[in-house]
Amino acid sequence: MLSKFVALKLGIKKNIIDGLLIHIPTGSNTAMIATKNKFAASSVVLSRENIKSGAIKHIFINSGNANACTGTKGYKNTEQILSILSKKLDCSPDQILIMSTGIIGRQLPIKKIIESIINSDLNIYTNIKQAATSIMTTDKYPKYLTKTYRIGQKKITFRGICKGAGMIEPNMATMLSFIETDVNLSKSLANKYLKYCANLSFNSISVDGDMSTNDTVVFSSTGSIKLNMKNKSIEAKFISCASDFFIRLSSLIVKDGEGATKFIKLNVTNAKSLILAQEVSKKLSSSILVKTAMFGEDPNWGRIIARIGSIESSNIKPHKVKLLINNILCFKNGISYDNGSKRLEKSMQKNTIEITVDLNHGKHKHSMYFCDLSHDYVQMNSEYTT
Amino acid sequence: MLSKFVALKLGIKKNIIDGLLIHIPTGSNTAMIATKNKFAASSVVLSRENIKSGAIKHIFINSGNANACTGTKGYKNTEQILSILSKKLDCSPDQILIMSTGIIGRQLPIKKIIESIINSDLNIYTNIKQAATSIMTTDKYPKYLTKTYRIGQKKITFRGICKGAGMIEPNMATMLSFIETDVNLSKSLANKYLKYCANLSFNSISVDGDMSTNDTVVFSSTGSIKLNMKNKSIEAKFISCASDFFIRLSSLIVKDGEGATKFIKLNVTNAKSLILAQEVSKKLSSSILVKTAMFGEDPNWGRIIARIGSIESSNIKPHKVKLLINNILCFKNGISYDNGSKRLEKSMQKNTIEITVDLNHGKHKHSMYFCDLSHDYVQMNSEYTT
Repeated sequence: MLSKFVALKLGIKKNIIDGLLIHIPTGSNTAMIATKNKFAASSVVLSRENIKSGAIKHIFINSGNANACTGTKGYKNTEQILSILSKKLDCSPDQILIMSTGIIGRQLPIKKIIESIINSDLNIYTNIKQAATSIMTTDKYPKYLTKTYRIGQKKITFRGICKGAGMIEPNMATMLSFIETDVNLSKSLANKYLKYCANLSFNSISVDGDMSTNDTVVFSSTGSIKLNMKNKSIEAKFISCASDFFIRLSSLIVKDGEGATKFIKLNVTNAKSLILAQEVSKKLSSSILVKTAMFGEDPNWGRIIARIGSIESSNIKPHKVKLLINNILCFKNGISYDNGSKRLEKSMQKNTIEITVDLNHGKHKHSMYFCDLSHDYVQMNSEYTT
Repeated sequence: MLSKFVALKLGIKKNIIDGLLIHIPTGSNTAMIATKNKFAASSVVLSRENIKSGAIKHIFINSGNANACTGTKGYKNTEQILSILSKKLDCSPDQILIMSTGIIGRQLPIKKIIESIINSDLNIYTNIKQAATSIMTTDKYPKYLTKTYRIGQKKITFRGICKGAGMIEPNMATMLSFIETDVNLSKSLANKYLKYCANLSFNSISVDGDMSTNDTVVFSSTGSIKLNMKNKSIEAKFISCASDFFIRLSSLIVKDGEGATKFIKLNVTNAKSLILAQEVSKKLSSSILVKTAMFGEDPNWGRIIARIGSIESSNIKPHKVKLLINNILCFKNGISYDNGSKRLEKSMQKNTIEITVDLNHGKHKHSMYFCDLSHDYVQMNSEYTT
């Protein structure tokens, strides 16, 4: 049993679909994580309240306007949308999650939105591709994925949509995602797995290193397939499937990153702590110098090493650090190993680049997924659009 | 009494001046700060030892090779240079500071360098412009400055050179600077003022947010002008002059930042702590989104506000934050004030942009100086150069 999607024309964008309503099957358990940004949009603030209180039945998403930095008026608009929706859908307002994505600092065209909700048939369903399309802002293509996995005799399914390509245009912000599984999970388990998988995926991707005011990931357990999660081996298998799905879906955002020409997988291994592995990977994936080198297909290990060296932690031992690019050893024992061989150079032409930093001083690891920094990125982000 | 400069052809670059020897007047007191990078070059490691032990008489700088990530051999080469120099200059090796800038990961052409030192006349002096030129790597122009100030009846002078334009080319790294004053300072006072002023200047500039393996700033008190620093008012005046000089000199690096078209002064005011003011200014000045907006002359306050909101500190109160661009109020009380007026738009065409973030919740402040992110930056940093 999976959710149903309704595409809406809310009137924020001119005469195109700019809204999505998701009907979540009765009995589902839903978890949510959202941006830690202090200027979180009112939709985030309200959804955070609603996820606490009750069984979520619907999700409403608008694109084209983030409803962030809009003050009390923006908050009241969000409340009004929930109130109108709840009447039409015959539920309580706190059974609806709401997400917004688009320009920061402008008020919603609330009259148009209310009118549209009142006049729309909320029982005409659309497919997942159209659902993913309806929440796009500057995305070049809709991002959606359905995948089945086998755990023992059981076939389980994950399905999800997401949007995001950077914090773009004047203020076109936000990464949004809705993922569901037909595995029966309690609310607390859904929460636990969402946090775990999001850390490996949506919190481990980087286009430009910026956190928007509206980022939200929702995870619903909508089906009835039972797995005995008390069995550690079964739980481990489930988590492995879920992580795989989350990483695949979130990678679509990196691949559609503004101006991206390369998809880079960065592995930081053998770190003293998980926090250190995450810090190193975050530092590297946000380095303008590393990102431009990738765009130039330049296996520039000096920039990577210098960036690692700038991290203030006594748990990085310079002489122990090993660096591999596309599985070719570049740096070890404090000196250069491969300083631009033809083999290394040629490997940089691939669409996917793999960088491995072996800190060689612990047993923790973390991977991040990011894109390069190209002329197109600068072009897209410097055009005057306010 | 100021230092004397000797330009050298060390043979690292083909047939051009690529070295500088500075003779510091006898009796000077010299202080140094250097990169915290864990992969610090052997020149940094050795200079750190030397500055502790004795009265520094000379500084030797080579450009074209950073001598970083070069292992034991690189370290021995540095020792050998100091040994040869000390014999020729009739001093102890630990009375010489050594700095290197250029490509990371390659060994110095040590034979050529030694030969050049042996064969050069180290008493033929050159001017400050040529001195600044001799340490350039990818800098577009030499950076030097002499300025006099008045404190009461006394005229004091600062003079300095620096280099740096980003961590560029395959691995052309490093910001280097030598500054001297004719005010008589004890070694401990020179240290104190260097730390204070460098925090406001060389540690508060950003081209691409990367810390190199070789960054070094040296400050010498070479003259005999006496100021009574125990008098708090005189000390405050001296610090104000010194800070002004340090900021002016270091700003030259930002203005020559790779591909830079804008010089941005960012003021973070009324913060709960100095650390918070520094954190906010560092976060903003390293934001790719903010930097590309500046390149596009786009007064995109949404990006600035979203970036501030991403800082995890309970001492930022979103509803208190005020934002001004070129002295025009853009954001206050959680909502937009100026969302792209003609006046604001026009002000963005200036070469120098001033951004003021008033956190309105404390009394600490910090300023940073950074440049925009342009097509030229991407071009320069993506060209295959390994």
